[in-house]
Amino acid sequence: MKTLIKNVTILTMNEQLDMYQQGEMLIEDDTIIEIGKTCSGTYDQCIDGHQGILLPGMINTHTHLGMIPFRGLGDDCPDRLRRFLFPLESKCMTPELVYHSSRYAMAEMLLSGITTFMDMYYFENEVAKAADEMKMRAFVGETIVDFPSCDSDQAYGGLDYCQWFIPKWKNHPLITPFVAPHATNTNDLKHLQLASQLAQKYDVPFSLHASELDYEMDYFQKEYQMTPTEFLNHYHLLNKNVVLAHCIHINDHDIDLIKENGASVAHCLVSNLKAGKGVMPLKQLLEKDVFVGLGTDGPSSGNTLELFSMMKMIACVHKTVNHDRNAFPCQDIVSLATLQGAKALHIDHLVGSLEIGKRADFIIVDTDSVSMYPLYDPYSALVYSANAGLVNTVFVNGECLVKDKTLQKVSLEELKQNLQQDSSTFSKQALEYVKGL
Amino acid sequence: MKTLIKNVTILTMNEQLDMYQQGEMLIEDDTIIEIGKTCSGTYDQCIDGHQGILLPGMINTHTHLGMIPFRGLGDDCPDRLRRFLFPLESKCMTPELVYHSSRYAMAEMLLSGITTFMDMYYFENEVAKAADEMKMRAFVGETIVDFPSCDSDQAYGGLDYCQWFIPKWKNHPLITPFVAPHATNTNDLKHLQLASQLAQKYDVPFSLHASELDYEMDYFQKEYQMTPTEFLNHYHLLNKNVVLAHCIHINDHDIDLIKENGASVAHCLVSNLKAGKGVMPLKQLLEKDVFVGLGTDGPSSGNTLELFSMMKMIACVHKTVNHDRNAFPCQDIVSLATLQGAKALHIDHLVGSLEIGKRADFIIVDTDSVSMYPLYDPYSALVYSANAGLVNTVFVNGECLVKDKTLQKVSLEELKQNLQQDSSTFSKQALEYVKGL
Ligand SMILES: [Zn+2]
Ligand SMILES: [Zn+2]
Repeated sequence: MKTLIKNVTILTMNEQLDMYQQGEMLIEDDTIIEIGKTCSGTYDQCIDGHQGILLPGMINTHTHLGMIPFRGLGDDCPDRLRRFLFPLESKCMTPELVYHSSRYAMAEMLLSGITTFMDMYYFENEVAKAADEMKMRAFVGETIVDFPSCDSDQAYGGLDYCQWFIPKWKNHPLITPFVAPHATNTNDLKHLQLASQLAQKYDVPFSLHASELDYEMDYFQKEYQMTPTEFLNHYHLLNKNVVLAHCIHINDHDIDLIKENGASVAHCLVSNLKAGKGVMPLKQLLEKDVFVGLGTDGPSSGNTLELFSMMKMIACVHKTVNHDRNAFPCQDIVSLATLQGAKALHIDHLVGSLEIGKRADFIIVDTDSVSMYPLYDPYSALVYSANAGLVNTVFVNGECLVKDKTLQKVSLEELKQNLQQDSSTFSKQALEYVKGL
Repeated sequence: MKTLIKNVTILTMNEQLDMYQQGEMLIEDDTIIEIGKTCSGTYDQCIDGHQGILLPGMINTHTHLGMIPFRGLGDDCPDRLRRFLFPLESKCMTPELVYHSSRYAMAEMLLSGITTFMDMYYFENEVAKAADEMKMRAFVGETIVDFPSCDSDQAYGGLDYCQWFIPKWKNHPLITPFVAPHATNTNDLKHLQLASQLAQKYDVPFSLHASELDYEMDYFQKEYQMTPTEFLNHYHLLNKNVVLAHCIHINDHDIDLIKENGASVAHCLVSNLKAGKGVMPLKQLLEKDVFVGLGTDGPSSGNTLELFSMMKMIACVHKTVNHDRNAFPCQDIVSLATLQGAKALHIDHLVGSLEIGKRADFIIVDTDSVSMYPLYDPYSALVYSANAGLVNTVFVNGECLVKDKTLQKVSLEELKQNLQQDSSTFSKQALEYVKGL
């Protein structure tokens, strides 16, 4: 089956940033076979992009899809994680709720142009099932944490969960299971080492929250006279399979260690800012060629599971932090959401740019909305003027999952109803709990 | 003519922040006559809000609507103002272009829920005409600047323009003309004083860019050993009719002077960040009860003429600047976009909150989009999850200007075509000019 996409401005997001005004792209099944001004091959069907912008599907390198029921709950409350997220999760989360929340969250991501995500939460077998059904490209990581959790009555039960869950999904064409210790400070050294060994045994990613919290920094300084990054390096827990989420409080030495060990970073700017935590030194990381992707964080932290408001936030905040209007030009920011994200997850041989031989993961963004005129520079329009509501078409691995801004394989209304039914008890309990704080 | 709005969550944004789940509001002609859980009066027509959020129309306290043709042009170029905005404006701006650009920009604002704006640019008689036709609540300020401009072959020609333009519009029910010296450093003292006298003579606002630029700060330090705010105060140019745009680089003494003189501030965070300029001390201004409204700045600076991405940016950035997740709760941010903006422009007796006797300037935001679920807290949903595309219905002064996300009195396509025709020469010249830099 061959599909031609025509009448689009193509941002290939390849290394040379090749761009085609009024370009065409031809895909065969799951693969891009031609791209440029025009394509010469025959095709079975044709998609008219109506002068939209064609670019690679976006990559969300850090999220918690099971947390849709938490969205908008106590947004401005300090120390939320320990005051109510942990207790509520332990008490109320069920596999069904994670499953329905994840399906809904995947729909939300697809509708906003995200085609690949890296999730870490509980009951990740449910998230993998949901991703399989929703046909997304997915990294699903089971949480390991130093207290009994909703999916284990023992501390560190996630290790056992990983043992059965990883082999089960390891050979799925679109899904990569992985090991996800919650954070540097919510696992002891021994269990971090066991988790790391598990990731190496199965050759899967290892991702955790790191250098995110003031009290985490204080803890490592006091206990080890090291930063969390130095600690991870010292105990051989940093390597090329590692994705560090947040890295707000890293210094130059930490950056060198991250680079030397080939680890990646998920930059969750909106979540970090909204929590008043600080700003990750993005410029310094990119100067050292560390692989950095963008992460929405969970819907209770960043609120929307999309990367458009993230791109605008990144341009605005990092230009200001560096007091330099020139810094972070728009093409670099679109690259963070696409090719750089793919590099951070080591899947840039498959996705992240539109090039012959790569998988057909792509999106078309409408340009006929009021704020997109005039359109001198499509990168600038994407970063500063667009929003998630302008994503018209989404393909993952050659399959059309969104067309005319509508999910093609499932009904959003149905996903919402299922989640609503399953979360009504949770929501009532949660509201009561938060009021009582 | 009486209209009932029902099946909405009402955020009155009054001082007590009264809120009605499943509330109703009754308007008669241009006035709100009942609001609450239910309304008892009779009505001629009824609008079903479909469980949307009803709130006051948003107020944009600083913009340049004539600049739509500049949007997305050289976004990341340093010192844009002097390198190409000033030269291009002087060379290429025409009254027709300002007129069509302003009409398009007003459409964009209406579609995003803005019902009142304060504009400063050239050919403001055209902007006033456009506002009259588009039926918006408008403050239109003619620029005064120390070089010949597109609407005057003499430096400071704006003073004469004000003399005929202000009396012409002064008694319009929705339009307030005003005097707009470009900036503290693009007018000499004598002409700032003449402009201020003119504003006092007609009892109209006086607005200018202030404490925005590094070189402005250096200039006043060197020439006067004062900050721009101290300079304005020293020469009696600060009073309750003054709206200072930006105020990025103000100190505590400046804030005291602004407060003592009763001047207002337009906070243009997105524009300031995108230019890498810095962050206005919002917390300190609010602690001193200075009237602060939000401004998009022009479409070449902030890119979108809406306050949704602004509200999210304000929450995120100011929480981080103050390292405090608790700071700037969502209701305070929605208030900046509504009641506080009305106070900054001294029209809070008319608009800014939904209260009996006030004008019927209101909007309904849809809550059925994917990122708006679940909805525990409508303020949080507006700030963190909504975007401009969710505005369903907009009334200004009792007239329905947007319904089902569609302009009711004009065609967006027609506005765009008119602007396109009028700006095609400009756009070509502009692109060439910017390439040559
Ligand atoms: Zn996280
Ligand atoms: Zn301005």
